Amino acid sequence: MITIALDAMGPDAGPAVVVEGAAQVSREEAPIRTLLVGDRDQIVPLLKRQSYDPQRLEVVHCTDWVRQDEKPGPALDARPQCSALVAAEIVGRGDADALVGAGSTGALILSASRKLERVEGVRRCALATVHPTEQQHGPHDDPFALMLDVGATLTVDAEDLVSFAVMGSAYSRIISSIEQPRVALLSNGTEPTKGTPAIVEAHRLLSEMPGINFVGNVEGLDIPRGTVDVVVCEGFLGNVVLKMLEGVSEVVSDIAKDAYARKFLWKLGLMMLSEGIRQIRTMTDWRQYGGAPVLGFTRPVIKAHGRSNAWAIRNAIRVARKTVERDLAGAIRAGLAGGG
Amino acid sequence: MITIALDAMGPDAGPAVVVEGAAQVSREEAPIRTLLVGDRDQIVPLLKRQSYDPQRLEVVHCTDWVRQDEKPGPALDARPQCSALVAAEIVGRGDADALVGAGSTGALILSASRKLERVEGVRRCALATVHPTEQQHGPHDDPFALMLDVGATLTVDAEDLVSFAVMGSAYSRIISSIEQPRVALLSNGTEPTKGTPAIVEAHRLLSEMPGINFVGNVEGLDIPRGTVDVVVCEGFLGNVVLKMLEGVSEVVSDIAKDAYARKFLWKLGLMMLSEGIRQIRTMTDWRQYGGAPVLGFTRPVIKAHGRSNAWAIRNAIRVARKTVERDLAGAIRAGLAGGG
Repeated sequence: MITIALDAMGPDAGPAVVVEGAAQVSREEAPIRTLLVGDRDQIVPLLKRQSYDPQRLEVVHCTDWVRQDEKPGPALDARPQCSALVAAEIVGRGDADALVGAGSTGALILSASRKLERVEGVRRCALATVHPTEQQHGPHDDPFALMLDVGATLTVDAEDLVSFAVMGSAYSRIISSIEQPRVALLSNGTEPTKGTPAIVEAHRLLSEMPGINFVGNVEGLDIPRGTVDVVVCEGFLGNVVLKMLEGVSEVVSDIAKDAYARKFLWKLGLMMLSEGIRQIRTMTDWRQYGGAPVLGFTRPVIKAHGRSNAWAIRNAIRVARKTVERDLAGAIRAGLAGGG
Repeated sequence: MITIALDAMGPDAGPAVVVEGAAQVSREEAPIRTLLVGDRDQIVPLLKRQSYDPQRLEVVHCTDWVRQDEKPGPALDARPQCSALVAAEIVGRGDADALVGAGSTGALILSASRKLERVEGVRRCALATVHPTEQQHGPHDDPFALMLDVGATLTVDAEDLVSFAVMGSAYSRIISSIEQPRVALLSNGTEPTKGTPAIVEAHRLLSEMPGINFVGNVEGLDIPRGTVDVVVCEGFLGNVVLKMLEGVSEVVSDIAKDAYARKFLWKLGLMMLSEGIRQIRTMTDWRQYGGAPVLGFTRPVIKAHGRSNAWAIRNAIRVARKTVERDLAGAIRAGLAGGG
């Protein structure tokens, strides 16, 4: 049975959604055992309201946790008994196979960095995330593409970009069942000479690398279109791009609300479109995807969204299990060695 | 009377839209004289179909021009008599006050670099562009914010970012009549310590600079929201962001077309919303804005969109006139000296 250490503290909705998600997983067929790491006084009463299998769910008590608005470095230094560090420690010493958290992203990544080992050949880990695209991907027609790094790093060199490409390719193959994911570098033009020196050099290295389906550079246009399965960039750029996509989606939703409030005819029009809008919303619902992986550690680390509900937490746990079973770390190691 | 050198060749619709725009300007009250630089054999027949004031419109013949898909450097080397270089040369020797073109962006910027002088203190010029935002800006409630650099540079240092901030502020004040434009650096967090070393250092320099309304860092979210009037970044990042915005707008339009084609009820809904959609479209019509300035030269350079129609060309010419009359170069010089 696979064991997942789950930081129970810190999502926007509080530990209740994490407890409910873990309880649900314990009742399902897939053999997963969950360690709920957090404040017993909060977790146990929440757990009592759930139906769950006590053989497959355990509470690991710790007294503290890192808030979303805290600076992760100083917070972890000040609170060695916080849930993120305790959960990472459990995975680091081998008492669990993967780490899942829905609280502060920085605290999760930093806790993992302090307690887990990196895959041989990976100098820097990367946070990967999916974004909605016009084109669909893989055998399940996912309306998402993967992008990394979106914030674990700032600037990186060519070798880091190469390892990001290999890690993203391995993850996409394992999770989206795309046999040969199309991987591209994000740049300011499609020619191999376009971009920063690190991108130009990474382009050269990836072009010569066996086992990866490197298709060259893509431009900003290709992000919403979704012309490739995996988009690779430095963390600074990925962070700006990701937040911009969030901003666009917020603005579109504001404009629709405004139109709805303003005119009877527009309200009627939006009502007629509501089924279409609902279809798009279902299509782009990140919650079905389960979370953003922090790639590069020997044991999987999954960051569930801060706005997760129980279903999203459950999906994040299932994704963690899949990456353990299908040996993501082994696939990354093989990819870096040129084995694909 | 102000004289504008106009590269007549190269927009998507061919020289006809440029000729028509220039003819229209010659009939208007504002005292502008236009030099239409390009192939006489193409321009003169087009001009014959227009009504124009021959005292205020002149054709300057040259035999060649750079295509949109050519690499600008080699193209300019191979064709010293191309329209972009000839037009820039006219401005460089003082026979015209500003340069306007709607052809290859790279050829226009590079021609200007070869033939024009930079404002004292500006080491690198920047291409600025407006993008639609949710919030409105300035006394005319412009639904646009300015962003620079979007592609004249790749990576830049802190001093370049400072000069971009000063140039963007001066342009926004002159063109959008915003007295104290809010200027921000695009970064991966709002704290002064966030971003690349160049951004952190530029943040420090701008915070201490008089005469500029520097409001700190903004994030990707703020681009579509439009929380500031001028967004400053390196050319590589600006290029990715700009193309991504174009991509998002293409995808939204594709989805709407698809919905329209698919279901009678959706078609009806879209029809009811059509007035609202038209309002948004008018609001975000870049053609009213006239073009993207290349900032940093002692004489104004305006890049009109490749998809310009005659009205957009006319607006680009009028913007060029405004920047001459209101002494953009002087404002940039004063701003860099700390005068605001």
